[in-house]
Amino acid sequence: MLKTKVIFSTKLPKLSLLGKNLFLICDKDLSRHSPAFAKWSTGFSGFYSVEAGEKLKNVENFAEHIKNIVDLTSDLNPKELKLVVVGGGSVGDFGGFVASILKRGVGLIHIPSTWLSAMDSSHGGKTALNVGGVKNQIGTFYSAEKVFIIKELLEAQPDSRAIEALGELIKTSVLDGGKWLGRINPGKIWSLLPLAIAYKYKILKKDPFEKNGTRQILNLGHTLGHALEGALAAPHGLAVGFGLRFAMEWSHLRGFLSKNDLEKVKKNMPAEFFKEIRIGEQELRENLIKDKKRLDDQNLNFIFLKGLGKPSRGVVEIEDVIREARRQGWVQ
Amino acid sequence: MLKTKVIFSTKLPKLSLLGKNLFLICDKDLSRHSPAFAKWSTGFSGFYSVEAGEKLKNVENFAEHIKNIVDLTSDLNPKELKLVVVGGGSVGDFGGFVASILKRGVGLIHIPSTWLSAMDSSHGGKTALNVGGVKNQIGTFYSAEKVFIIKELLEAQPDSRAIEALGELIKTSVLDGGKWLGRINPGKIWSLLPLAIAYKYKILKKDPFEKNGTRQILNLGHTLGHALEGALAAPHGLAVGFGLRFAMEWSHLRGFLSKNDLEKVKKNMPAEFFKEIRIGEQELRENLIKDKKRLDDQNLNFIFLKGLGKPSRGVVEIEDVIREARRQGWVQ
Repeated sequence: MLKTKVIFSTKLPKLSLLGKNLFLICDKDLSRHSPAFAKWSTGFSGFYSVEAGEKLKNVENFAEHIKNIVDLTSDLNPKELKLVVVGGGSVGDFGGFVASILKRGVGLIHIPSTWLSAMDSSHGGKTALNVGGVKNQIGTFYSAEKVFIIKELLEAQPDSRAIEALGELIKTSVLDGGKWLGRINPGKIWSLLPLAIAYKYKILKKDPFEKNGTRQILNLGHTLGHALEGALAAPHGLAVGFGLRFAMEWSHLRGFLSKNDLEKVKKNMPAEFFKEIRIGEQELRENLIKDKKRLDDQNLNFIFLKGLGKPSRGVVEIEDVIREARRQGWVQ
Repeated sequence: MLKTKVIFSTKLPKLSLLGKNLFLICDKDLSRHSPAFAKWSTGFSGFYSVEAGEKLKNVENFAEHIKNIVDLTSDLNPKELKLVVVGGGSVGDFGGFVASILKRGVGLIHIPSTWLSAMDSSHGGKTALNVGGVKNQIGTFYSAEKVFIIKELLEAQPDSRAIEALGELIKTSVLDGGKWLGRINPGKIWSLLPLAIAYKYKILKKDPFEKNGTRQILNLGHTLGHALEGALAAPHGLAVGFGLRFAMEWSHLRGFLSKNDLEKVKKNMPAEFFKEIRIGEQELRENLIKDKKRLDDQNLNFIFLKGLGKPSRGVVEIEDVIREARRQGWVQ
């Protein structure tokens, strides 16, 4: 992923600059939201449009998808074939996985269409499918050659999607020392994207394949976040916002994070992150056991904060997480 | 794949030397043929036994297999999980693919159980599934940490399997200059394995991901071979034997290969390679079009021989291949 080139632009790129033998995989709703995309997409000789969402990533549906894609790309030279994947997180995870295994790997270009995927999932080479309803059980590390961050495409989203991006954006700002925390605002995401993306690459370069633990600090807020996301079908970005609050409050209780820093971050969170959310204790336990950060039956890695810009990895018991969630009022 | 360690041994390895959190994927018939394997396999805490053959590699069956494997490995630490894959080519292709995508990649150890997989498919990191009945349309490059070549396991095979290994073995010997051609004999494969495997790694090191063309020389005999394999359901090793004869006769016709070298190789081929085999012209054409070595609608790469140890890549028209196959009597 170190070789990925990130390109910021107001408009969608000319196809002739992307290569020959291009094949488009895209969210089927994009043309409706973005006339610019609708027009641009007609330039491809072949395409496969999909319905975005976790169902797209279910391995049960994969045989049909890949059969269609193999058929639709059969006339293109496999040595030069390049998939251009346009969509949000689920489309990117799916399309990236397809690129990584089709003919044992073809070219991949990501053009994220949501704020969240533009700042997070389109970078770092993680691809994934779900197995038996459990998220991201299979996948690959496969970096895109290029990631295009396109203003006209991102701004074609409904405004409501901006709130979903704030969880990862605030998390990143907190990890990056909090310097640009005060500038976060749903209407200003475009101008903050270069900062959030640059921080992510800084971490990725130290741990491209999630081997030495560095990359795990990006999981700040994701332990309770993923559990809530699974239980409540909350959007990922919002769930990470809840999880970030949880991790910061716990860090404060343990004496790691000052009241001042805690309040500074909370003050910059949108009202949506303070909605009353409850999860059943047994469901929380089951979701924590399924967590990929789990070490064994009882323990998992948890990212605490020892100050803005100072994440710290600790091992906690699953029952500790549940106890703290109950104390903070997340458990029914 | 440069990091793969190949270990030759008379007996199956002690499990404690392979690691912790081991999971076995194996051909379900092995226990019947090899009491040593049956006993050894009871040492695993978890296993998944499969029916060998191309059906195992059909992507239509993959969702069920991977769901079972995710369930059976859910109690093992994903960071330390290692798949030990024991079987022939299809089991190795399938198990290697699973290892490459499970939790975005877990440890992999190959223990090939057929002569053919011991000398060929277990080395080089190619994994594969079939899509819509077409072989190896998806897969990964994913090298095993270790490949164990185990005499007691290989000798437990029915003797008839040895013939199937001779196609790849003679091909390798021819590519390697023919020095050990005279020693090839179905009863002597064990003693020749180190030579055949060493030659394969020599080529793999020059082109691990099939990017610069060097690795393509290993496809000597595979153009007509694959077409016959698909059409006649002939075992891969036997089909490569037919394909090798075809490539050498064509090389001789073109003035590349001397009558002397041609006869020297044919003299060392088993009688099975001279069986009368016929394929329909249209079926041959269709199978050649599906070939992964195809460049475009009309042309494909073909490996000729300019002498023992002197492979040479050429571009030929699909219709040229068909014309030459007709001349040699392979076409009905």
